[in-house]
Amino acid sequence: MGGKITMKIGIVGLGLIGGSLAWDFTQAGHEVWGVSRRSATCEAAQNRGLVVAASDQLTLLESTDIIFICTPISLIVPTAEQLFSWLPQSTVVTDVGSVKGPIVAHLGDRWRRFVGGHPMAGTAEQGLEAAQPRLFHGAPYVLTPTAHTDPQAIALVKELIQTLGAQLHLCDPAHHDRAVAWISHGPVWISATLIASCLQEEDPAVLHLAQQLASSGFRDTSRVGGGNPELGVMMAQHNQTALLRQLKQYRDRLDGVIQQLETNQWEALETMLHQTQAQRPAFLRED
Amino acid sequence: MGGKITMKIGIVGLGLIGGSLAWDFTQAGHEVWGVSRRSATCEAAQNRGLVVAASDQLTLLESTDIIFICTPISLIVPTAEQLFSWLPQSTVVTDVGSVKGPIVAHLGDRWRRFVGGHPMAGTAEQGLEAAQPRLFHGAPYVLTPTAHTDPQAIALVKELIQTLGAQLHLCDPAHHDRAVAWISHGPVWISATLIASCLQEEDPAVLHLAQQLASSGFRDTSRVGGGNPELGVMMAQHNQTALLRQLKQYRDRLDGVIQQLETNQWEALETMLHQTQAQRPAFLRED
Repeated sequence: MGGKITMKIGIVGLGLIGGSLAWDFTQAGHEVWGVSRRSATCEAAQNRGLVVAASDQLTLLESTDIIFICTPISLIVPTAEQLFSWLPQSTVVTDVGSVKGPIVAHLGDRWRRFVGGHPMAGTAEQGLEAAQPRLFHGAPYVLTPTAHTDPQAIALVKELIQTLGAQLHLCDPAHHDRAVAWISHGPVWISATLIASCLQEEDPAVLHLAQQLASSGFRDTSRVGGGNPELGVMMAQHNQTALLRQLKQYRDRLDGVIQQLETNQWEALETMLHQTQAQRPAFLRED
Repeated sequence: MGGKITMKIGIVGLGLIGGSLAWDFTQAGHEVWGVSRRSATCEAAQNRGLVVAASDQLTLLESTDIIFICTPISLIVPTAEQLFSWLPQSTVVTDVGSVKGPIVAHLGDRWRRFVGGHPMAGTAEQGLEAAQPRLFHGAPYVLTPTAHTDPQAIALVKELIQTLGAQLHLCDPAHHDRAVAWISHGPVWISATLIASCLQEEDPAVLHLAQQLASSGFRDTSRVGGGNPELGVMMAQHNQTALLRQLKQYRDRLDGVIQQLETNQWEALETMLHQTQAQRPAFLRED
Protein backbone atom coordinates (compact mmCIF):
# COMPACT_ATOMS: atom_id res chain seq x y z
CA MET A 1 0.00 0.00 0.00
CA GLY A 2 3.03 2.29 0.32
CA GLY A 3 1.83 4.61 3.07
CA LYS A 4 -1.80 4.68 1.94
CA ILE A 5 -4.38 4.19 4.64
CA THR A 6 -6.72 1.27 4.12
CA MET A 7 -10.25 2.19 5.01
CA LYS A 8 -13.16 -0.02 5.93
CA ILE A 9 -15.93 1.03 3.54
CA GLY A 10 -19.54 -0.11 3.78
CA ILE A 11 -21.80 -0.12 0.74
CA VAL A 12 -25.56 -0.57 1.07
CA GLY A 13 -27.16 -1.53 -2.22
CA LEU A 14 -25.00 -3.50 -4.64
CA GLY A 15 -26.45 -2.35 -7.95
CA LEU A 16 -24.70 -0.55 -10.79
CA ILE A 17 -23.51 2.36 -8.64
CA GLY A 18 -22.81 0.44 -5.42
CA GLY A 19 -21.12 -2.40 -7.30
CA SER A 20 -18.95 -0.04 -9.35
CA LEU A 21 -17.92 1.88 -6.22
CA ALA A 22 -17.03 -1.44 -4.55
CA TRP A 23 -14.96 -2.38 -7.57
CA ASP A 24 -12.85 0.81 -7.57
CA PHE A 25 -12.46 0.96 -3.78
CA THR A 26 -11.35 -2.69 -3.58
CA GLN A 27 -8.97 -2.05 -6.47
CA ALA A 28 -7.54 0.92 -4.53
CA GLY A 29 -6.75 -1.41 -1.60
CA HIS A 30 -9.63 -0.60 0.70
CA GLU A 31 -11.70 -3.17 2.58
CA VAL A 32 -15.25 -3.12 1.23
CA TRP A 33 -18.22 -4.59 3.09
CA GLY A 34 -21.48 -4.96 1.19
CA VAL A 35 -25.14 -5.12 2.12
CA SER A 36 -27.89 -6.18 -0.22
CA ARG A 37 -31.41 -7.39 0.48
CA ARG A 38 -30.93 -10.19 -2.02
CA SER A 39 -28.66 -13.03 -0.93
CA ALA A 40 -27.89 -13.90 -4.57
CA THR A 41 -26.46 -10.41 -5.01
CA CYS A 42 -24.39 -10.77 -1.83
CA GLU A 43 -22.96 -14.03 -3.13
CA ALA A 44 -22.23 -12.62 -6.57
CA ALA A 45 -20.41 -9.62 -5.09
CA GLN A 46 -18.28 -11.91 -2.94
CA ASN A 47 -17.57 -14.32 -5.79
CA ARG A 48 -16.45 -11.46 -8.01
CA GLY A 49 -14.13 -10.22 -5.27
CA LEU A 50 -15.83 -6.83 -5.05
CA VAL A 51 -16.32 -7.14 -1.27
CA VAL A 52 -14.57 -8.92 1.58
CA ALA A 53 -17.98 -9.89 2.94
CA ALA A 54 -21.63 -9.24 2.21
CA SER A 55 -24.86 -9.70 4.10
CA ASP A 56 -28.50 -8.75 4.08
CA GLN A 57 -28.00 -7.25 7.56
CA LEU A 58 -26.92 -3.63 8.02
CA THR A 59 -25.14 -4.59 11.25
CA LEU A 60 -22.37 -6.06 9.09
CA LEU A 61 -21.24 -2.44 8.70
CA GLU A 62 -20.95 -1.52 12.37
CA SER A 63 -17.17 -1.19 12.38
CA THR A 64 -16.76 0.59 9.03
CA ASP A 65 -15.21 4.06 8.70
CA ILE A 66 -17.63 5.25 6.03
CA ILE A 67 -20.87 3.97 4.52
CA PHE A 68 -22.16 4.72 1.01
CA ILE A 69 -25.94 4.34 0.77
CA CYS A 70 -26.56 3.23 -2.84
CA THR A 71 -30.15 2.04 -2.56
CA PRO A 72 -33.00 3.29 -4.77
CA ILE A 73 -33.66 6.92 -3.84
CA SER A 74 -36.83 6.26 -1.82
CA LEU A 75 -34.93 3.92 0.52
CA ILE A 76 -32.03 6.29 1.31
CA VAL A 77 -33.68 8.11 4.22
CA PRO A 78 -35.16 4.95 5.86
CA THR A 79 -31.83 3.14 5.50
CA ALA A 80 -29.91 6.05 7.02
CA GLU A 81 -32.36 6.30 9.90
CA GLN A 82 -31.89 2.63 10.67
CA LEU A 83 -28.11 3.06 10.64
CA PHE A 84 -28.18 6.18 12.81
CA SER A 85 -30.05 4.32 15.57
CA TRP A 86 -26.96 2.24 16.46
CA LEU A 87 -24.00 3.43 14.38
CA PRO A 88 -20.95 4.86 16.23
CA GLN A 89 -21.06 8.65 15.82
CA SER A 90 -17.61 8.56 14.29
CA THR A 91 -18.91 6.82 11.16
CA VAL A 92 -19.19 8.97 8.05
CA VAL A 93 -22.31 8.34 5.96
CA THR A 94 -22.90 9.47 2.39
CA ASP A 95 -25.46 8.66 -0.30
CA VAL A 96 -25.66 8.63 -4.08
CA GLY A 97 -29.22 9.90 -4.63
CA SER A 98 -29.98 12.00 -7.72
CA VAL A 99 -31.91 14.57 -5.70
CA LYS A 100 -30.28 16.20 -2.69
CA GLY A 101 -32.50 18.81 -1.04
CA PRO A 102 -35.05 16.58 0.73
CA ILE A 103 -32.45 13.95 1.68
CA VAL A 104 -30.01 16.46 3.14
CA ALA A 105 -32.86 18.24 4.94
CA HIS A 106 -33.84 14.94 6.58
CA LEU A 107 -30.41 13.58 7.38
CA GLY A 108 -28.05 16.55 7.61
CA ASP A 109 -29.21 17.80 11.00
CA ARG A 110 -29.59 14.28 12.32
CA TRP A 111 -25.99 13.21 11.62
CA ARG A 112 -23.13 15.72 11.48
CA ARG A 113 -21.03 13.19 9.61
CA PHE A 114 -23.60 12.80 6.79
CA VAL A 115 -22.48 14.22 3.43
CA GLY A 116 -24.98 14.23 0.55
CA GLY A 117 -23.50 12.99 -2.70
CA HIS A 118 -24.44 12.42 -6.33
CA PRO A 119 -22.09 10.62 -8.71
CA MET A 120 -23.36 11.48 -12.20
CA ALA A 121 -22.36 8.39 -14.10
CA GLY A 122 -24.37 5.49 -15.37
CA THR A 123 -25.11 3.16 -18.20
CA ALA A 124 -28.32 1.98 -19.78
CA GLU A 125 -27.92 -1.24 -17.81
CA GLN A 126 -28.73 -1.70 -14.14
CA GLY A 127 -27.84 -4.10 -11.37
CA LEU A 128 -24.61 -5.64 -10.13
CA GLU A 129 -24.04 -7.40 -13.48
CA ALA A 130 -23.64 -3.96 -15.06
CA ALA A 131 -21.07 -2.81 -12.46
CA GLN A 132 -17.74 -1.87 -13.98
CA PRO A 133 -14.36 -0.43 -12.98
CA ARG A 134 -13.70 3.27 -13.54
CA LEU A 135 -17.39 4.02 -14.09
CA PHE A 136 -16.95 7.39 -12.36
CA HIS A 137 -13.65 8.33 -14.01
CA GLY A 138 -13.96 11.82 -15.48
CA ALA A 139 -17.64 12.07 -14.52
CA PRO A 140 -18.98 14.77 -12.18
CA TYR A 141 -19.42 13.78 -8.55
CA VAL A 142 -21.41 16.35 -6.58
CA LEU A 143 -21.18 16.74 -2.80
CA THR A 144 -23.68 18.92 -0.94
CA PRO A 145 -22.37 19.54 2.57
CA THR A 146 -24.10 22.16 4.71
CA ALA A 147 -22.88 24.53 7.41
CA HIS A 148 -23.59 21.76 9.93
CA THR A 149 -21.52 19.08 8.21
CA ASP A 150 -18.37 17.91 9.99
CA PRO A 151 -15.37 19.15 7.93
CA GLN A 152 -13.49 15.88 8.58
CA ALA A 153 -16.38 13.92 7.11
CA ILE A 154 -16.28 16.10 3.99
CA ALA A 155 -12.52 15.59 3.74
CA LEU A 156 -12.86 11.83 3.95
CA VAL A 157 -15.54 11.62 1.22
CA LYS A 158 -13.50 13.98 -1.00
CA GLU A 159 -10.46 11.79 -0.62
CA LEU A 160 -12.35 8.69 -1.73
CA ILE A 161 -13.89 10.51 -4.70
CA GLN A 162 -10.41 11.47 -5.82
CA THR A 163 -9.59 7.75 -5.80
CA LEU A 164 -12.34 7.28 -8.37
CA GLY A 165 -10.92 9.91 -10.71
CA ALA A 166 -14.25 11.72 -10.65
CA GLN A 167 -14.63 15.48 -11.07
CA LEU A 168 -15.65 16.87 -7.71
CA HIS A 169 -18.25 19.65 -7.41
CA LEU A 170 -19.33 21.08 -4.05
CA CYS A 171 -22.58 22.98 -3.88
CA ASP A 172 -25.72 23.78 -1.98
CA PRO A 173 -28.32 20.96 -2.10
CA ALA A 174 -30.98 23.28 -3.55
CA HIS A 175 -28.58 24.48 -6.26
CA HIS A 176 -27.86 20.87 -7.17
CA ASP A 177 -31.54 20.09 -7.50
CA ARG A 178 -32.22 23.14 -9.67
CA ALA A 179 -29.24 22.40 -11.89
CA VAL A 180 -30.24 18.76 -12.48
CA ALA A 181 -33.81 19.90 -13.13
CA TRP A 182 -32.40 22.03 -15.99
CA ILE A 183 -30.08 19.49 -17.49
CA SER A 184 -31.60 16.13 -16.65
CA HIS A 185 -35.07 15.90 -15.11
CA GLY A 186 -36.64 18.73 -17.16
CA PRO A 187 -35.37 17.49 -20.53
CA VAL A 188 -37.10 14.14 -19.88
CA TRP A 189 -40.52 15.86 -19.89
CA ILE A 190 -39.66 18.38 -22.62
CA SER A 191 -38.58 15.47 -24.78
CA ALA A 192 -41.45 13.14 -23.83
CA THR A 193 -43.97 15.91 -24.53
CA LEU A 194 -42.65 16.12 -28.09
CA ILE A 195 -43.47 12.45 -28.65
CA ALA A 196 -46.76 12.61 -26.73
CA SER A 197 -48.06 15.70 -28.54
CA CYS A 198 -47.07 14.29 -31.92
CA LEU A 199 -48.99 11.09 -31.11
CA GLN A 200 -52.04 13.31 -30.50
CA GLU A 201 -51.87 14.69 -34.06
CA GLU A 202 -55.48 14.45 -35.18
CA ASP A 203 -54.78 13.57 -38.83
CA PRO A 204 -53.56 9.95 -39.01
CA ALA A 205 -51.97 10.61 -42.42
CA VAL A 206 -49.81 13.36 -40.92
CA LEU A 207 -48.78 11.17 -37.98
CA HIS A 208 -47.90 8.31 -40.30
CA LEU A 209 -45.88 10.63 -42.52
CA ALA A 210 -44.09 12.13 -39.50
CA GLN A 211 -43.09 8.62 -38.43
CA GLN A 212 -41.78 7.86 -41.92
CA LEU A 213 -39.85 11.12 -42.30
CA ALA A 214 -38.38 11.51 -38.81
CA SER A 215 -34.59 11.42 -38.77
CA SER A 216 -31.70 12.46 -36.53
CA GLY A 217 -33.28 15.73 -35.35
CA PHE A 218 -36.35 14.03 -33.97
CA ARG A 219 -34.33 11.05 -32.78
CA ASP A 220 -32.03 13.19 -30.62
CA THR A 221 -34.70 15.57 -29.33
CA SER A 222 -36.96 12.67 -28.33
CA ARG A 223 -34.32 10.34 -26.89
CA VAL A 224 -34.60 11.00 -23.17
CA GLY A 225 -38.39 11.19 -23.49
CA GLY A 226 -38.37 7.56 -24.58
CA GLY A 227 -36.35 6.37 -21.59
CA ASN A 228 -37.21 4.43 -18.43
CA PRO A 229 -40.72 5.53 -17.29
CA GLU A 230 -40.31 4.46 -13.65
CA LEU A 231 -37.04 6.37 -13.35
CA GLY A 232 -38.54 9.48 -14.97
CA VAL A 233 -41.46 9.55 -12.57
CA MET A 234 -39.26 8.77 -9.56
CA MET A 235 -37.06 11.77 -10.34
CA ALA A 236 -40.15 13.95 -10.81
CA GLN A 237 -41.51 12.87 -7.43
CA HIS A 238 -38.29 13.51 -5.59
CA ASN A 239 -37.35 16.72 -7.39
CA GLN A 240 -40.90 18.00 -7.83
CA THR A 241 -40.31 21.60 -6.68
CA ALA A 242 -37.25 22.28 -8.80
CA LEU A 243 -38.71 20.43 -11.78
CA LEU A 244 -41.93 22.46 -11.70
CA ARG A 245 -39.92 25.68 -11.43
CA GLN A 246 -37.83 24.63 -14.43
CA LEU A 247 -40.75 23.50 -16.60
CA LYS A 248 -42.70 26.69 -15.90
CA GLN A 249 -39.74 28.86 -16.87
CA TYR A 250 -39.36 26.75 -20.01
CA ARG A 251 -43.06 27.06 -20.79
CA ASP A 252 -42.95 30.84 -20.35
CA ARG A 253 -40.00 31.12 -22.71
CA LEU A 254 -41.83 28.89 -25.21
CA ASP A 255 -44.87 31.16 -24.99
CA GLY A 256 -42.54 34.03 -25.92
CA VAL A 257 -41.28 32.11 -28.94
CA ILE A 258 -44.83 31.33 -30.07
CA GLN A 259 -45.79 34.97 -29.71
CA GLN A 260 -42.76 36.10 -31.71
CA LEU A 261 -43.59 33.58 -34.42
CA GLU A 262 -47.18 34.80 -34.56
CA THR A 263 -46.10 38.42 -34.93
CA ASN A 264 -43.30 37.83 -37.46
CA GLN A 265 -40.53 38.93 -35.12
CA TRP A 266 -37.92 37.18 -37.21
CA GLU A 267 -35.04 39.29 -35.99
CA ALA A 268 -35.73 38.47 -32.35
CA LEU A 269 -36.05 34.78 -33.21
CA GLU A 270 -32.79 34.78 -35.12
CA THR A 271 -31.08 36.52 -32.21
CA MET A 272 -32.34 33.76 -29.95
CA LEU A 273 -30.95 31.03 -32.22
CA HIS A 274 -27.63 32.85 -32.49
CA GLN A 275 -27.50 32.91 -28.70
CA THR A 276 -28.40 29.25 -28.30
CA GLN A 277 -25.87 28.27 -30.97
CA ALA A 278 -23.14 30.31 -29.26
CA GLN A 279 -23.95 29.23 -25.71
CA ARG A 280 -24.64 25.51 -26.17
CA PRO A 281 -20.94 24.53 -26.16
CA ALA A 282 -20.69 25.78 -22.55
CA PHE A 283 -22.88 22.79 -21.60
CA LEU A 284 -20.85 20.22 -23.52
CA ARG A 285 -18.38 18.47 -21.29
CA GLU A 286 -16.16 15.82 -22.76
CA ASP A 287 -17.25 12.49 -21.38
CA MET B 1 -26.92 2.28 -71.24
CA GLY B 2 -28.62 -1.02 -72.09
CA GLY B 3 -32.03 0.25 -73.14
CA LYS B 4 -32.13 3.08 -70.62
CA ILE B 5 -33.26 6.45 -71.89
CA THR B 6 -30.81 9.27 -71.42
CA MET B 7 -32.54 12.40 -70.20
CA LYS B 8 -31.46 15.99 -70.40
CA ILE B 9 -31.68 17.23 -66.82
CA GLY B 10 -31.34 20.85 -65.76
CA ILE B 11 -30.28 21.76 -62.23
CA VAL B 12 -30.61 25.32 -60.93
CA GLY B 13 -28.49 25.88 -57.86
CA LEU B 14 -25.34 23.80 -57.55
CA GLY B 15 -25.04 23.53 -53.77
CA LEU B 16 -25.04 20.40 -51.63
CA ILE B 17 -28.40 19.14 -52.93
CA GLY B 18 -28.08 20.30 -56.56
CA GLY B 19 -24.47 19.11 -56.79
CA SER B 20 -25.28 15.72 -55.27
CA LEU B 21 -28.24 15.26 -57.64
CA ALA B 22 -25.98 16.18 -60.58
CA TRP B 23 -23.45 13.62 -59.40
CA ASP B 24 -25.91 10.71 -59.24
CA PHE B 25 -27.73 11.65 -62.47
CA THR B 26 -24.46 11.97 -64.41
CA GLN B 27 -23.34 8.67 -62.93
CA ALA B 28 -26.61 7.09 -64.12
CA GLY B 29 -25.81 8.20 -67.68
CA HIS B 30 -28.02 11.27 -67.94
CA GLU B 31 -26.94 14.59 -69.42
CA VAL B 32 -26.90 17.20 -66.67
CA TRP B 33 -26.90 20.95 -67.35
CA GLY B 34 -26.20 23.25 -64.42
CA VAL B 35 -27.04 26.84 -63.56
CA SER B 36 -25.44 28.79 -60.74
CA ARG B 37 -25.25 32.52 -60.13
CA ARG B 38 -21.56 32.15 -59.29
CA SER B 39 -19.24 31.50 -62.22
CA ALA B 40 -16.69 29.82 -59.92
CA THR B 41 -19.33 27.26 -58.99
CA CYS B 42 -20.16 26.68 -62.68
CA GLU B 43 -16.48 26.08 -63.40
CA ALA B 44 -16.04 23.75 -60.43
CA ALA B 45 -19.09 21.68 -61.42
CA GLN B 46 -17.74 21.33 -64.96
CA ASN B 47 -14.21 20.53 -63.82
CA ARG B 48 -15.52 17.80 -61.52
CA GLY B 49 -17.51 16.32 -64.40
CA LEU B 50 -20.84 16.76 -62.60
CA VAL B 51 -22.39 18.61 -65.56
CA VAL B 52 -21.86 18.68 -69.31
CA ALA B 53 -22.14 22.45 -69.20
CA ALA B 54 -22.94 25.18 -66.67
CA SER B 55 -23.89 28.83 -66.90
CA ASP B 56 -25.26 31.71 -64.87
CA GLN B 57 -28.10 31.98 -67.41
CA LEU B 58 -31.32 29.96 -67.03
CA THR B 59 -31.69 29.88 -70.81
CA LEU B 60 -29.00 27.19 -70.86
CA LEU B 61 -31.81 24.83 -69.79
CA GLU B 62 -34.28 25.57 -72.59
CA SER B 63 -33.99 22.16 -74.22
CA THR B 64 -33.93 20.01 -71.06
CA ASP B 65 -36.60 17.39 -70.28
CA ILE B 66 -36.77 18.18 -66.60
CA ILE B 67 -35.44 20.91 -64.31
CA PHE B 68 -34.68 20.55 -60.58
CA ILE B 69 -34.81 23.90 -58.79
CA CYS B 70 -32.29 23.55 -55.95
CA THR B 71 -31.90 27.19 -54.93
CA PRO B 72 -32.42 28.50 -51.39
CA ILE B 73 -36.12 28.21 -50.58
CA SER B 74 -36.95 31.91 -51.01
CA LEU B 75 -35.68 31.84 -54.61
CA ILE B 76 -37.67 28.79 -55.73
CA VAL B 77 -40.86 30.64 -56.73
CA PRO B 78 -39.07 33.57 -58.48
CA THR B 79 -36.82 31.13 -60.34
CA ALA B 80 -39.77 29.01 -61.45
CA GLU B 81 -41.70 32.08 -62.60
CA GLN B 82 -38.77 33.17 -64.75
CA LEU B 83 -38.55 29.70 -66.28
CA PHE B 84 -42.31 29.49 -66.92
CA SER B 85 -42.22 32.71 -68.98
CA TRP B 86 -40.33 31.03 -71.83
CA LEU B 87 -39.98 27.29 -71.09
CA PRO B 88 -41.64 24.79 -73.50
CA GLN B 89 -44.79 23.48 -71.80
CA SER B 90 -43.48 19.94 -72.18
CA THR B 91 -40.70 20.56 -69.65
CA VAL B 92 -41.18 19.00 -66.23
CA VAL B 93 -40.16 21.21 -63.30
CA THR B 94 -39.59 20.10 -59.72
CA ASP B 95 -38.03 21.68 -56.65
CA VAL B 96 -36.29 20.53 -53.47
CA GLY B 97 -37.71 23.03 -50.97
CA SER B 98 -38.20 21.92 -47.35
CA VAL B 99 -41.70 23.46 -47.23
CA LYS B 100 -44.26 22.52 -49.86
CA GLY B 101 -47.64 24.19 -49.26
CA PRO B 102 -46.88 27.78 -50.33
CA ILE B 103 -44.61 26.70 -53.21
CA VAL B 104 -47.12 24.26 -54.64
CA ALA B 105 -49.94 26.77 -54.17
CA HIS B 106 -47.95 29.33 -56.21
CA LEU B 107 -46.60 27.05 -58.91
CA GLY B 108 -48.95 24.06 -59.15
CA ASP B 109 -51.79 25.87 -60.94
CA ARG B 110 -49.39 27.84 -63.08
CA TRP B 111 -47.59 24.79 -64.51
CA ARG B 112 -49.28 21.40 -64.83
CA ARG B 113 -45.89 19.75 -65.14
CA PHE B 114 -44.63 21.14 -61.83
CA VAL B 115 -44.16 18.50 -59.12
CA GLY B 116 -43.24 19.69 -55.63
CA GLY B 117 -40.41 17.68 -54.08
CA HIS B 118 -38.39 17.42 -50.88
CA PRO B 119 -35.37 15.13 -50.67
CA MET B 120 -34.71 14.71 -46.94
CA ALA B 121 -30.98 14.21 -46.91
CA GLY B 122 -28.17 16.49 -45.95
CA THR B 123 -24.95 16.91 -44.08
CA ALA B 124 -23.69 19.58 -41.73
CA GLU B 125 -21.69 21.00 -44.67
CA GLN B 126 -23.11 23.14 -47.43
CA GLY B 127 -22.16 24.14 -50.96
CA LEU B 128 -20.88 22.27 -53.99
CA GLU B 129 -17.71 21.19 -52.14
CA ALA B 130 -19.93 19.11 -49.84
CA ALA B 131 -21.74 17.40 -52.74
CA GLN B 132 -21.36 13.64 -52.72
CA PRO B 133 -22.56 10.57 -54.56
CA ARG B 134 -25.46 8.56 -53.14
CA LEU B 135 -26.42 11.33 -50.73
CA PHE B 136 -30.10 10.42 -51.17
CA HIS B 137 -29.66 6.65 -51.02
CA GLY B 138 -32.10 5.23 -48.47
CA ALA B 139 -33.30 8.70 -47.46
CA PRO B 140 -36.94 9.79 -47.80
CA TYR B 141 -37.82 11.80 -50.92
CA VAL B 142 -41.26 13.37 -50.73
CA LEU B 143 -43.30 14.35 -53.77
CA THR B 144 -46.43 16.47 -53.36
CA PRO B 145 -48.41 16.33 -56.59
CA THR B 146 -51.95 17.72 -56.62
CA ALA B 147 -55.09 16.80 -58.55
CA HIS B 148 -53.92 19.23 -61.26
CA THR B 149 -50.49 17.72 -61.74
CA ASP B 150 -49.81 15.99 -65.07
CA PRO B 151 -49.47 12.22 -64.34
CA GLN B 152 -46.65 11.89 -66.87
CA ALA B 153 -44.67 14.56 -65.03
CA ILE B 154 -45.13 12.65 -61.76
CA ALA B 155 -44.00 9.44 -63.45
CA LEU B 156 -40.85 11.08 -64.79
CA VAL B 157 -39.82 12.52 -61.43
CA LYS B 158 -40.56 9.19 -59.69
CA GLU B 159 -38.37 7.39 -62.20
CA LEU B 160 -35.43 9.69 -61.49
CA ILE B 161 -35.89 9.40 -57.74
CA GLN B 162 -35.68 5.63 -58.08
CA THR B 163 -32.31 6.16 -59.79
CA LEU B 164 -31.12 7.84 -56.58
CA GLY B 165 -32.15 4.87 -54.43
CA ALA B 166 -34.27 7.21 -52.29
CA GLN B 167 -37.43 6.13 -50.47
CA LEU B 168 -40.33 7.75 -52.26
CA HIS B 169 -43.29 9.20 -50.34
CA LEU B 170 -46.25 10.84 -52.09
CA CYS B 171 -48.48 13.12 -50.07
CA ASP B 172 -50.53 16.26 -49.91
CA PRO B 173 -48.38 19.45 -49.60
CA ALA B 174 -50.16 20.49 -46.38
CA HIS B 175 -49.61 17.05 -44.86
CA HIS B 176 -45.92 17.29 -45.69
CA ASP B 177 -45.64 20.68 -44.01
CA ARG B 178 -47.41 19.49 -40.87
CA ALA B 179 -45.30 16.36 -40.68
CA VAL B 180 -42.00 18.24 -41.01
CA ALA B 181 -43.23 20.75 -38.43
CA TRP B 182 -43.57 17.82 -36.02
CA ILE B 183 -40.30 16.11 -36.73
CA SER B 184 -37.97 18.86 -37.90
CA HIS B 185 -39.00 22.52 -37.64
CA GLY B 186 -40.78 22.23 -34.27
CA PRO B 187 -37.97 20.36 -32.52
CA VAL B 188 -35.61 23.23 -33.42
CA TRP B 189 -37.62 25.65 -31.25
CA ILE B 190 -38.43 23.09 -28.54
CA SER B 191 -34.73 22.37 -28.27
CA ALA B 192 -33.56 25.99 -28.55
CA THR B 193 -36.04 27.03 -25.87
CA LEU B 194 -34.39 24.56 -23.48
CA ILE B 195 -31.04 26.31 -23.92
CA ALA B 196 -32.56 29.81 -23.93
CA SER B 197 -34.64 29.29 -20.78
CA CYS B 198 -31.71 27.72 -18.96
CA LEU B 199 -29.57 30.74 -19.85
CA GLN B 200 -32.25 32.89 -18.18
CA GLU B 201 -31.80 31.04 -14.86
CA GLU B 202 -31.64 33.88 -12.37
CA ASP B 203 -29.09 32.29 -10.04
CA PRO B 204 -25.64 32.35 -11.69
CA ALA B 205 -24.43 29.54 -9.41
CA VAL B 206 -27.20 27.26 -10.67
CA LEU B 207 -26.47 28.12 -14.32
CA HIS B 208 -22.77 27.48 -13.81
CA LEU B 209 -23.47 24.17 -12.11
CA ALA B 210 -25.91 23.16 -14.88
CA GLN B 211 -23.16 23.82 -17.44
CA GLN B 212 -20.71 21.71 -15.44
CA LEU B 213 -23.09 18.80 -14.88
CA ALA B 214 -24.80 18.60 -18.30
CA SER B 215 -24.18 15.35 -20.08
CA SER B 216 -25.66 13.24 -22.88
CA GLY B 217 -29.31 13.93 -22.00
CA PHE B 218 -28.92 17.68 -22.30
CA ARG B 219 -26.56 17.32 -25.24
CA ASP B 220 -29.07 15.36 -27.31
CA THR B 221 -32.15 17.34 -26.31
CA SER B 222 -30.41 20.65 -27.10
CA ARG B 223 -28.62 19.60 -30.31
CA VAL B 224 -30.96 20.93 -32.98
CA GLY B 225 -31.55 24.10 -30.94
CA GLY B 226 -27.86 24.88 -31.29
CA GLY B 227 -27.88 24.56 -35.09
CA ASN B 228 -27.77 27.06 -37.94
CA PRO B 229 -29.79 30.17 -36.89
CA GLU B 230 -30.47 31.44 -40.43
CA LEU B 231 -31.77 28.05 -41.51
CA GLY B 232 -33.97 27.73 -38.41
CA VAL B 233 -35.58 31.13 -39.00
CA MET B 234 -35.94 30.51 -42.74
CA MET B 235 -37.86 27.31 -42.06
CA ALA B 236 -40.05 29.11 -39.50
CA GLN B 237 -40.85 31.85 -42.01
CA HIS B 238 -41.77 29.45 -44.78
CA ASN B 239 -43.61 26.93 -42.61
CA GLN B 240 -45.07 29.46 -40.18
CA THR B 241 -48.65 28.15 -40.13
CA ALA B 242 -47.82 24.49 -39.59
CA LEU B 243 -45.06 25.36 -37.11
CA LEU B 244 -47.35 27.52 -34.99
CA ARG B 245 -49.99 24.79 -35.03
CA GLN B 246 -47.39 22.27 -33.88
CA LEU B 247 -45.85 24.44 -31.16
CA LYS B 248 -49.26 25.33 -29.74
CA GLN B 249 -50.26 21.67 -29.54
CA TYR B 250 -46.92 20.95 -27.90
CA ARG B 251 -47.39 23.80 -25.44
CA ASP B 252 -50.90 22.61 -24.55
CA ARG B 253 -49.58 19.10 -23.87
CA LEU B 254 -46.78 20.58 -21.76
CA ASP B 255 -49.34 22.57 -19.77
CA GLY B 256 -51.05 19.26 -19.07
CA VAL B 257 -47.80 17.73 -17.84
CA ILE B 258 -47.14 20.71 -15.56
CA GLN B 259 -50.65 20.46 -14.15
CA GLN B 260 -50.26 16.73 -13.52
CA LEU B 261 -46.93 17.35 -11.78
CA GLU B 262 -48.49 20.03 -9.60
CA THR B 263 -51.31 17.75 -8.53
CA ASN B 264 -49.21 14.62 -7.96
CA GLN B 265 -50.84 12.63 -10.75
CA TRP B 266 -47.94 10.20 -10.85
CA GLU B 267 -49.91 7.39 -12.44
CA ALA B 268 -50.97 9.55 -15.39
CA LEU B 269 -47.40 10.77 -15.81
CA GLU B 270 -46.03 7.24 -15.75
CA THR B 271 -48.65 6.18 -18.31
CA MET B 272 -47.43 9.00 -20.55
CA LEU B 273 -43.80 7.89 -20.26
CA HIS B 274 -44.77 4.29 -20.95
CA GLN B 275 -46.55 5.48 -24.07
CA THR B 276 -43.65 7.63 -25.29
CA GLN B 277 -41.19 4.81 -24.59
CA ALA B 278 -43.35 2.32 -26.52
CA GLN B 279 -44.15 4.65 -29.43
CA ARG B 280 -40.78 6.32 -30.04
CA PRO B 281 -39.37 3.40 -32.08
CA ALA B 282 -42.10 4.01 -34.71
CA PHE B 283 -40.23 7.26 -35.52
CA LEU B 284 -36.80 5.68 -35.80
CA ARG B 285 -35.94 4.88 -39.35
CA GLU B 286 -32.60 3.29 -40.12
CA ASP B 287 -30.44 5.89 -41.87
